[in-house]
Amino acid sequence: MKIAIDAFGGDNAPLEIIRGTVLAKKEFDEEFILTGSVETIKECAAQSGLSLDGIELVEAPLVMDMHDEAKAVVKSKADSSMGVGLRLVADGKADAFVTAGPTGATLMGATLLIKRLKGVRRPALGTVIPGVEGNYMLMDCGANVECQPEMLEQFGVLGSVYMKKVYGIENPKVGLANNGAEDSKGTDMHIQAHKLLSDNKAINFMGNIEGRDIPFGKCQVVVADGFSGNMILKVTEGSFSAVFSLLKGVFMKNLCSKLATLMLKKSLKEFREKYNHDTVGGAPFIGLNKPVIKAHGSSGANAFKNAIAQAIKWHKSGVTEEIQKTLNTEH
Amino acid sequence: MKIAIDAFGGDNAPLEIIRGTVLAKKEFDEEFILTGSVETIKECAAQSGLSLDGIELVEAPLVMDMHDEAKAVVKSKADSSMGVGLRLVADGKADAFVTAGPTGATLMGATLLIKRLKGVRRPALGTVIPGVEGNYMLMDCGANVECQPEMLEQFGVLGSVYMKKVYGIENPKVGLANNGAEDSKGTDMHIQAHKLLSDNKAINFMGNIEGRDIPFGKCQVVVADGFSGNMILKVTEGSFSAVFSLLKGVFMKNLCSKLATLMLKKSLKEFREKYNHDTVGGAPFIGLNKPVIKAHGSSGANAFKNAIAQAIKWHKSGVTEEIQKTLNTEH
Repeated sequence: MKIAIDAFGGDNAPLEIIRGTVLAKKEFDEEFILTGSVETIKECAAQSGLSLDGIELVEAPLVMDMHDEAKAVVKSKADSSMGVGLRLVADGKADAFVTAGPTGATLMGATLLIKRLKGVRRPALGTVIPGVEGNYMLMDCGANVECQPEMLEQFGVLGSVYMKKVYGIENPKVGLANNGAEDSKGTDMHIQAHKLLSDNKAINFMGNIEGRDIPFGKCQVVVADGFSGNMILKVTEGSFSAVFSLLKGVFMKNLCSKLATLMLKKSLKEFREKYNHDTVGGAPFIGLNKPVIKAHGSSGANAFKNAIAQAIKWHKSGVTEEIQKTLNTEH
Repeated sequence: MKIAIDAFGGDNAPLEIIRGTVLAKKEFDEEFILTGSVETIKECAAQSGLSLDGIELVEAPLVMDMHDEAKAVVKSKADSSMGVGLRLVADGKADAFVTAGPTGATLMGATLLIKRLKGVRRPALGTVIPGVEGNYMLMDCGANVECQPEMLEQFGVLGSVYMKKVYGIENPKVGLANNGAEDSKGTDMHIQAHKLLSDNKAINFMGNIEGRDIPFGKCQVVVADGFSGNMILKVTEGSFSAVFSLLKGVFMKNLCSKLATLMLKKSLKEFREKYNHDTVGGAPFIGLNKPVIKAHGSSGANAFKNAIAQAIKWHKSGVTEEIQKTLNTEH
């Protein structure tokens, strides 16, 4: 397969993106295209002693930034590294697109150029998060700030198929993120979504899930409106970081604790890596015709490589076909 | 002062509530009233060897449970331990009320019986959470699932006065929980709330705060609609628990790590106590004429004692008068 990569998306572009692509090239036997200013990519790679051998470069003079309106990606900034990358996929010249650029523009561009699968109301951003009892997918994580109940129902279906095909979880449990366990909890939108999810036979709906149970991975698909989903994702990330920041006080308290910490160093490092959001790397926009992965804006090379790995996994899993089959059966 | 306590609220009533009250009686030189079945309270205390000396008991034959409609507290269950406790405060026979019973009923009963301060749109549930840079108040935590922008603006004012008077924080920074830093982020309701908060001269508004920064305590008052606030609170609690649950794997990995953990045992225990939500104990319903504290449904004796402490702190701080003064100046 061929993966188009936005070399100029995110806070650490282009260097960390190039580095991540070089790492992916070594690890996976696939083809890669970097989009952006070819001259700058070459200069940057040369300065850091990175070989671009076997990586195709496609010129895109512009860059989408945080302040651009989302629709610019198909208009005034169609020639940006993001716009060009998306068009490569839309035109069949690449099989997947990975970017660390702005979320709104990625969604807008992907929806307009790569297009939704038939029957999909709105593509959603799903993030796979490591929990105590295993990985879970949280969707939507912020692509659709305001949602209708039918959208939430569909997020449950899309997330279930993704977790089954890409992560091999049979019959994943689906929970609706809500402020209480009872059916009557939440806003009217949540109450209606609860009913639709309950009635949907394509999924294994367990009912509402409260915030406290989400990080434990009590279900494998957490359905949320984009506003709450974004909050859940970022509060989870922030809390994990905060605990480690606070634990420094325990570890560095005195000589004895410093010694103990030294003894735990290797395990703690492995632990931090396991529960680092970089490791999962990249959130898929689910519901599109082709894989589009949004890497974290602050992605380093390794996180970005993992986002590329997610695109490969998606492409090879047959998830797109399975989603289409499920939606066709439903309608 | 005299504190009315619902002896039959929460999962561990009445034993842990009685225990908590006995602990508070020892620690604070105040008067306490327990409401509920006097016979059961006496039996329970006797069985556990707890002395009720100096604690007044007021009969209330019924109990509000999770399945009761909120309004039952002033109707069919007016004679519940919660209904009776609230009336003691409303009638001036007690100065504050503490319960671990259902949130919705507490809010409904308190609003109808103890009543709002003049100018308060809706009382909100504020929880003080320990963060990396210090304590912050999150409000609303779930009392008002659907909010108007003007309510969020007022939460900012109420929270600021509370953090100033009760926690001694001068000019607390106020942030609006949102899915991005830009003014244009969130739903229409959040965009309008952002504008109102920006224009309000009574508070020190810093703009939007993203989920990732909340657990760090980057501001001292986090304003949220009740749905998101509940999610933020519970995901924060859940994430802290999840990290510790996961860390057990690191600590118990092998002999060497077990030894190291033994060396850290005391500090880790202190740490867990410091960041245990029990320690803060109880969320104030802010905007009422008198202190009403909602303790966690799962409160043990110590958590409940801390909820009582919060009621005492509130009563003595003059926060009610200060809120009234601030609202009068505004209108």
